[in-house]
Amino acid sequence: MAMLPAAALPLTGRADAAQMRSTNMGLILRYLRAHGPRSRAKLAAETGLSKATVSTLVGDLTELGLVHDVGADRPGTVGRPGVMLELDGGRVCGIGVEINVDHVSLVVADLTGAVLIEELHPLAAATVPVGEMLRIVAELVSGRLEELRADGMWVASLTVSPPGIIDYDDGTVRFAPNIGWRSVPLVGELKRLIGPDVPYIHLENDAKLSALAECATYESRGVRDLIFVTGDIGVGVGIVAEGQLVRGWSGFSGEVGHLPLDLENRPCNCGRTGCWELCIGLNELLRLAGSDNDEINDPERPLEDRLTMIRERADAGDERTRAALATITSNLARGLGILVDVLNPKVIVLGGYFTSMAPHILPSLATALAARRMDEGSAVELAASRLGISSAAYGGAIVALEGVFADPTLVPAT
Amino acid sequence: MAMLPAAALPLTGRADAAQMRSTNMGLILRYLRAHGPRSRAKLAAETGLSKATVSTLVGDLTELGLVHDVGADRPGTVGRPGVMLELDGGRVCGIGVEINVDHVSLVVADLTGAVLIEELHPLAAATVPVGEMLRIVAELVSGRLEELRADGMWVASLTVSPPGIIDYDDGTVRFAPNIGWRSVPLVGELKRLIGPDVPYIHLENDAKLSALAECATYESRGVRDLIFVTGDIGVGVGIVAEGQLVRGWSGFSGEVGHLPLDLENRPCNCGRTGCWELCIGLNELLRLAGSDNDEINDPERPLEDRLTMIRERADAGDERTRAALATITSNLARGLGILVDVLNPKVIVLGGYFTSMAPHILPSLATALAARRMDEGSAVELAASRLGISSAAYGGAIVALEGVFADPTLVPAT
Repeated sequence: MAMLPAAALPLTGRADAAQMRSTNMGLILRYLRAHGPRSRAKLAAETGLSKATVSTLVGDLTELGLVHDVGADRPGTVGRPGVMLELDGGRVCGIGVEINVDHVSLVVADLTGAVLIEELHPLAAATVPVGEMLRIVAELVSGRLEELRADGMWVASLTVSPPGIIDYDDGTVRFAPNIGWRSVPLVGELKRLIGPDVPYIHLENDAKLSALAECATYESRGVRDLIFVTGDIGVGVGIVAEGQLVRGWSGFSGEVGHLPLDLENRPCNCGRTGCWELCIGLNELLRLAGSDNDEINDPERPLEDRLTMIRERADAGDERTRAALATITSNLARGLGILVDVLNPKVIVLGGYFTSMAPHILPSLATALAARRMDEGSAVELAASRLGISSAAYGGAIVALEGVFADPTLVPAT
Repeated sequence: MAMLPAAALPLTGRADAAQMRSTNMGLILRYLRAHGPRSRAKLAAETGLSKATVSTLVGDLTELGLVHDVGADRPGTVGRPGVMLELDGGRVCGIGVEINVDHVSLVVADLTGAVLIEELHPLAAATVPVGEMLRIVAELVSGRLEELRADGMWVASLTVSPPGIIDYDDGTVRFAPNIGWRSVPLVGELKRLIGPDVPYIHLENDAKLSALAECATYESRGVRDLIFVTGDIGVGVGIVAEGQLVRGWSGFSGEVGHLPLDLENRPCNCGRTGCWELCIGLNELLRLAGSDNDEINDPERPLEDRLTMIRERADAGDERTRAALATITSNLARGLGILVDVLNPKVIVLGGYFTSMAPHILPSLATALAARRMDEGSAVELAASRLGISSAAYGGAIVALEGVFADPTLVPAT
C-alpha cells in the first residue's frame, strides 16, 4: 500500500488560554484597522466574539494604550450613547527606512497608520563608503528613536530596506550591485551603532516592501494578487500572492531585471547579455530621449528635474521623447506579459520613473497586454504607484507594526 | 498628515470556545500526521497544550474514529505502559480524480495518507464528448463512494482536476484547449449525476495539485518553495510558495506554455507565435526524435510504449534521440531560468514525459541553470517527479482531506 505524503501544513493554530487572549486582542485591533471606529456591541456582533469577551479584551487593550473611546455611536439618540472604540495612535509606532541608490528615506507610522514622520535625504549611495552609510542610517534612526520615546511612544520595530539581495537568516545584504555592496552585515552593524535600546530590526527588499504597501492601498477592493515594478537603473518586482509576499526560498524572487528580453542582446554588467533592464531601465530612457549633451543627460542636475523635463516634452508632443517612451513601453510589455502568464496578478503597479511617465506608458501597455490575453481571467489592471518615492519606507513601517497586530500583548504596560 | 493604508491582513484567528476546541483537535491531527505516533504526555509537551486538554480532545477524536491507541511507548518499562496515539485510517478518506488528455485517474487516500485505491483508465479525452466524459467520471466516483460507504468510511470530499483553466467561483472549467472544453459546468454536472449523496467537490488544476503533492514529499527537508512542470503536448507549471499554492487572482497562474520562447517563432494553436510548449512539448520530442514513419510516431501505439522506446534509444546512445533531448533540454532551460529569476524556487520538479527522460535531461539542465546563477541564493535543485502519472490525483486526495485537518468536528459522529 503506497503512502500519501503528509501535506506541508504548518503546525500553527495552537490555542491555549493565553494565546486565545492575544489572538482575540489582535483580531479586535485588525478589525478596527480595517473597518474604522465601532461600538463594543457592533464589534461583538461582527467578530463573533461574546460581549463579555470583547469587554474584557477592550479593557486590556485600553490599558496598553492601543484603543480608546470616542464620541457616541448615534449622537442623536436618547439614553446612554453607544460609545465608539477606535485605534489609539498615541502609544505605538513602527519605523521604515529605505536605503536607495540616490536617497535614504525614513517613515514613522503610528498604530492607526498615520504617518508621523516622513523624511527623504538625497544621497548617492554608491559614492558613500559602506561604513559611512551605516553610520548615517544609524544616526537618523537614533535621533528619531530618542524623539519618539521622549514623546512616550513605544517603537514596535524597525524595517530596513537595502536595494539588493538579503540573507534573512543572518541579517546581511548579500549583494546590492547598484550601490556596490557585497556581504554587508547590516542588522549586526546597525544594532551595534544604535546601541542597547535598538528595537528589533527586520530586513526586507525594497520592491517587496513597496508591493506590500501598494497592495494595502487596494484593500478595500479586496485585491490580494499584485506585482510592483521598480523602475530605476535596475528593475525588479515585488510579488504579493493571496495577500502574502512571495519571497522565494532565499529571498531572491522578483529578480526580473536580468531576464533575457533585450532585443539588441547587449552585454550587461551582470555578465549575462540582453537583460531586460537594459531596454526598460532609466539609462535606456535617457539614452533614447536625448543626445549626450541634452540637459536631460546632465548628471549635475537632480534626476527629479530631468524626469520632469522628459515628462513635459512628452506632454508637449515632442517626437523623440514620445518615440523613446513607446520603445520603453513595448519592451516593458514583453516582460510584463511573462509575469502575467506566470503569476496571474490582478494589478501591476509601476513604480520608480515609470510612475512619472505613466500617462504616456499605461495606455499602450494595456493595449499590448490585452492583445495577448487568452481569456478574461488573465486580464490585468495597470496602475501607477500611489505611494511614490517613499513606498518602500511606507511598507517597512507596515511590516514594523505587524507584530503588534499579531500579538498585542507584546506591547509593554504603560 | 498622510495615512498609511491598513495592511491587507485577513481577519482570521477568531477563537471562541468551540473554535478553540476544533483548532486544537486539528492541531493534534496535523501533529500526528507530521510526526507519527506519540504518547499523550509527549503530545502535550510538544504541542504546548495542557495534559487535561489533550486528554479531553483525544477522547473526542477517538469517538469520531480519527485516532486510536496502539502498543506501548517503551514496551520494556515496568508499570503502566505509555500508550501511543496514532491517526486512525479506518474512518475517513478523500478522493482525487484527474481528467487528463489521455487518461482518467482516481486516488482514494485515508486520513493517514495511505492510498486505498489507485486506478488509471486510458481514455483519449479529446475524442469523447463532454457529456459522456462527465458520465464516465460520475460513474467512477459513484461506484467508489458506494464501496467506501459500505465499508463504513466517511468521504470528506472530492477533488476533480481537469486539464485546463478553472473558474473557482462557479465551479466551471473555462477553457481546456487540449481536450476541447470551454465553459463546462463541471461541479454542477457532477453533483447532478452523482446525486444527493455527493460529497463536497473541489476543482483544482492538475499542475497545481501535482505541485502540492510533490512539495509534500519534501516535507521532511522543509522545502516550501517548489515548481512542478507538467510535460505533455501542453506545458504548464504549478507554483508552491512558502507552502501555499500560488493560484493568481483567477486561477490562471502557471500558464507558461505560451511564453514566447520558441526560437523558431512558429505559430501556435493559441493564436500567439513562438510558444514555449512548441519547443519543449511532447510533439516536439516526437518530431525531433523520429521521422513520420518511425514507430515512435505511430498513434496506434500506446504513448507509454513510445516513450519507453525513446528512452531506450537514448540509453543506448542513439544520436538522433540524444540530439533531440539536448535540444529540448536547452529550450527547457531558457524558460526555467525565467521561472527561477521570478520565483526563486528551492526545487523544480519535472513531471509528464520529462520524468521518463530525466536522466538525459537533468544533468545538462542543471549545468545550464548554474551557468546563469548570480548568487548561491538563486541556486535551484532539479528533480524528476516522485509521484508519477497519478500525482494530480494524489494531490486531489490531499486537498480533499484538508478540511478534516482544519476542523475535525466536521466529521459526523459514528
